[in-house]
This record gives sequence, C-alpha cells and structure tokens, in this order.
Amino acid sequence: MNEFELIARLTRSLPANDKTVLGPGDDCALIDLGLAGRWLLFKTDAVVEGIHFLKTTPADRIGHKALARPLSDIAAMAGTPTHALVTLALPQNFKPEVVESIYAGMKSLAVRHGVAIVGGETTTNPERMLLSVSVLGTVAKGRPPLRSGARAGDAIFVTGELGGSQAGKHLEFEPRLAEARWLADRFAIHAMMDISDGLAGDLPHILNASRVGAELLSDAIPVSRAAKEIARGGRPQTANGPPTHVGGWKQALAAALTDGEDFELLFTVAAGDAVPLLDAWKKQFPELPLSCIGRIKAEPGLTIRDREGIKPLAVHGYVHFQES
Amino acid sequence: MNEFELIARLTRSLPANDKTVLGPGDDCALIDLGLAGRWLLFKTDAVVEGIHFLKTTPADRIGHKALARPLSDIAAMAGTPTHALVTLALPQNFKPEVVESIYAGMKSLAVRHGVAIVGGETTTNPERMLLSVSVLGTVAKGRPPLRSGARAGDAIFVTGELGGSQAGKHLEFEPRLAEARWLADRFAIHAMMDISDGLAGDLPHILNASRVGAELLSDAIPVSRAAKEIARGGRPQTANGPPTHVGGWKQALAAALTDGEDFELLFTVAAGDAVPLLDAWKKQFPELPLSCIGRIKAEPGLTIRDREGIKPLAVHGYVHFQES
Repeated sequence: MNEFELIARLTRSLPANDKTVLGPGDDCALIDLGLAGRWLLFKTDAVVEGIHFLKTTPADRIGHKALARPLSDIAAMAGTPTHALVTLALPQNFKPEVVESIYAGMKSLAVRHGVAIVGGETTTNPERMLLSVSVLGTVAKGRPPLRSGARAGDAIFVTGELGGSQAGKHLEFEPRLAEARWLADRFAIHAMMDISDGLAGDLPHILNASRVGAELLSDAIPVSRAAKEIARGGRPQTANGPPTHVGGWKQALAAALTDGEDFELLFTVAAGDAVPLLDAWKKQFPELPLSCIGRIKAEPGLTIRDREGIKPLAVHGYVHFQES
Repeated sequence: MNEFELIARLTRSLPANDKTVLGPGDDCALIDLGLAGRWLLFKTDAVVEGIHFLKTTPADRIGHKALARPLSDIAAMAGTPTHALVTLALPQNFKPEVVESIYAGMKSLAVRHGVAIVGGETTTNPERMLLSVSVLGTVAKGRPPLRSGARAGDAIFVTGELGGSQAGKHLEFEPRLAEARWLADRFAIHAMMDISDGLAGDLPHILNASRVGAELLSDAIPVSRAAKEIARGGRPQTANGPPTHVGGWKQALAAALTDGEDFELLFTVAAGDAVPLLDAWKKQFPELPLSCIGRIKAEPGLTIRDREGIKPLAVHGYVHFQES
C-alpha cells in the first residue's frame, strides 16, 4: 500500500460534523462556524530534515519554507491566512541561534502576509529536525475554487515556471496569495490547487476530483531556467550560450512536469475567459509569467501533445521521455 | 538556555495582528475573527515515540493520546473543540494496520467530543514515529479563564487525582471538556489550566502570570492510587493491606506534585465560591473527585504546608522530600 492508498483508506471514514463544509482531500479544509459571509480555512504541513531540507540549509530558509508551504495551500483556495502555530521538534543539544534564525525566517514571511504566529511548542526528535506548521485563514463563502470544479473545454493555466525547484526556489518561494485572490475576485476559476508534487503528479488530482481528462501542450509548459540548466549538466546559462540540444530539452521538460515543490498555482477557467484573463494578468502581474498549458477534456486520462504527436503522461512519479 | 528560556525569548516578538486576542503563553491562542459572541481557540501539540509513548504502546492509545492532549488544552479554556488536523510522521516500512489503529484511537475520542478530523498528512521521520495534532475550537467571548486571572485569597482546586500517570492514565485520560464548561458556566473561574508537567511545575505558570503566590496543603493533595502503588514498590493495593509507611507516603506525595501528564484541571475561584462549588460538583460529577488544595497569596512564591510546617516547593523539576 502506498501513501496515497493509505490516506484514501484512512480518510474514507473520518469523523465529521455539521460545521464541516469540506474535509480531507483538497488543499485546505473548509469550515463554517457561522462567520458572516466567510468560511474558515484550516491546513497543516510538515518539513523534515533530510527530506525537505538539509542539515546545511540556512536556518532562516527552513523557517521560511515551513510556513510558506501551508500558506501556498491557503493561496490554492484563494484565501487569506490569519494565524499560524508552529511545532518545532529538535535534536538534543540544538543551538538556540538556529532556532532563532528559523523563527526569523518564519516571522518575516508572516509579517508580509499579515499572519500572526500565536504559539506552538518545542519538543524533542533526537535524530533530525522536524517542523510542523498549522495555518488558519478565511475565504468568502462559495469562493474557493476546489479541485472538483474543472469542466470539459476549460483552459488550464499555471503561474510562474516549473521544474528545478531544488536549485533554490523550494527555499525561497513566495506563496501566490495575492495572485490567487486577484484571480478569484475577477474570474470564475473553476478548479485550482498549488503544485507541490509536479504538474504531472498534481493535475490528476484535479482530473480525478472533477471526473475529466486533460491534454497538455508540450511547447506551452513554462520550463524554468533552473530546470534547463540542470538538464544541460548544471552549466550556468549565458545570453549567448549554445542552443540546448534535443535530449537536454526533453530532460528539462520532464523536470518541469515532474519535479516537486514548484508551489505555483494550477487552475482552470472556461475557454472564453482565457484571453481576457491573460490580458488582465499581464497588466496586473507583469513580472510573473502566466501560461495556458492545455485544456480539459471530457474523456478521462492525461495526455501531452508535442511535435511528434499525442502521448499519455504517467499519473504519478517520474515520467521517462525516450530520446528520439 | 533551557526550553522555557528559549520559548520566552522566541515568543517575545512574534508577529501579531488585530484579530489576535491572546498569543502564545496560555493553554490556547484566542482569536477574534468576528464570530458573533465567540472567540476561536487554536492549539497544536505533538507526541514523539520514545518520549510520550513507546514502540510497544498499543497504536490506538497513541492516537488517543495525540488528540487528547490538545483537547485538554481546549478544556483548560472552557472551550468546545470543533475540528482537528493530524500530521503523522512515520518511519519507513510502517505497517498500514498500525496507522489505521492510530486513527481508530483518535476517531473514537473525536466522535465522543463532536470533533471533525478534517485532514492532515503523512510524512517520513525515519527513526521514530511522531504525531502532531492541531485543534480548533470556540468559546464564548470573555469566558476563558486565563492563567493570569488568579487573585490573592482565591481557593485552588484540582480535578481527579494526581501522580503515577505513567502507569497507564497518560494513554487513557479523557479531556475534562464537559467539566470545564460546566465550571465556567456556573462559577467565576478566575484562572485555569490543565496540568501536564505536574502540579508543582504548572501552578507557577498561573502564579507568574497572575503575579501572586500560593500555599498548598499537603494533606489535601489528591494522590492517585497509581502514585501510591509505585511508591510502595509496585505492589498492588488491597483493601486490607498494611498502612503505607512514611517514606512511601512522602514519595507518593512527591509523585502527585511532580509527575507529568495528569491532564487534570487546575483552577482558582474566590474563597466564597469554594463551598458552593464543591457541593454542586459532587451532585454533577459524583464519580470525579474535586479537591481544594490550597490558596492564592499576595506574596510571590509557592509553599506547601504539612504537619511539620511550611516548606518552599521547587518551581520546576523534581521536588526532593527529605526523609524524617
């Protein structure tokens, strides 16, 4: 049984109550406690040394990432985060400066987004550091674009660029909170989530929840500079450098499709909204690319179209592109 | 720098916002999101293998304890828990049955208290299991008895019996949610908290926050049967057994004062409320002892009075009773 199967089995019969709008399975839980016009968003996320960061990762970046991840889930619901709690599980003999630096990274991100850190605890995890952060937020009732809202014919969009996050972005990314609220304020966003397990791994969550399929356009995928550089063997990109060879390009595309921790927004809108949305976006967020990467189909399955034709895209894990 | 000093240093300058009624330092954070007549309660708590439970602890008891601990903090604010999120950090090659059993323990407790488990995640912690549970709840505005509300002259009460929790209670305890709400509904509870680090370790949190002192009565401390049995060398107590010898009694009292994980309510009320409260309690909760264990004084410090006189009680850690 893998992690996904286990979670599916566990969450099939979790206790609910009449204040729960949406339980497990989307980016955040949705709760109605009777707040006028608003639902609560509730989310928790953990980062573990050796998995999400290394012993050598600067401590303030660990703190930043630990808070930025659940904030990215609040963004995926077009919400506004308000409060966070921090659990810090530390090896024995930790250095207080390290802990203060972790908090400094969290605090600076929290302040930028108006989030109050209202407590938490330190406990012991002898072998490695682990941080678990819980976030509370709010969103207008009926507003959050769920994973289940995609419709056949929708245009699929992604913010920013994908792949190669391990080169640094995973420690530096800013949750797309303002962008997501702007989108939901102005357009009927049918479905939205943040990409944490790679486009090819995460889009199927929308497809399965919405009972639809999708076709991506290989040329439209916004491949990050980091993914391209890694594909070329780590050589730094120069303005006059040689063109990326074909194998490198396919490798970079594979990275954009399957690398984890992009933390960009993935969403769908009616096809008729696609052009007005792109136009308005460019005026509002001129620095941040927005790409229309494909469309939702009625038939299930995920395919990608390139110059050679249409190929199925594996749902989970690494996608292996054959060299031509 | 110990954990308390570190937390104090970290929490001195955490980001706040205008929706925060109370940040770190009490049993829960208090949040005002504009809910009519009510504040939100927000709390997180973690349990770690080898520290809060053992590899051999039945998995459903691990789940019970992981949720019961933050629920006990909601109880300490006289609140009603509504939703929980669970983070499960698991060693590799965990058995799915173990995880299902952990959830079974949590679910049964959650159902009893109307708590919806609305999500969470599993992650990897290779060397040992770690569970972090975040809980959301509500409480009437102005209702929660804070740690800072004790006044000179108050009577100090404790529910249940103290000490020896390691013999089993720490895996079985039921959070005192109904009892705490009943208390706050009917009496002016000046200060309240749950006892997790032992009476002698936790009462000073109330004293420091309230800028008062206290005198406990040694004979009034409700020493648990488990603490007495452990003090007698683990022999099971019998109705006709020999009286506990003096050294054993002092050892049992020390356990009641300093053993962790009692998860009982510790609270203060005006002296004039003490007798009516005890009378009403006995009618409402005839099975659960309630003990008046001392009084709040204007002078700082924590003392205990026994047949030999008044002695200072160490604030943190084990209290060493000298054999007479």
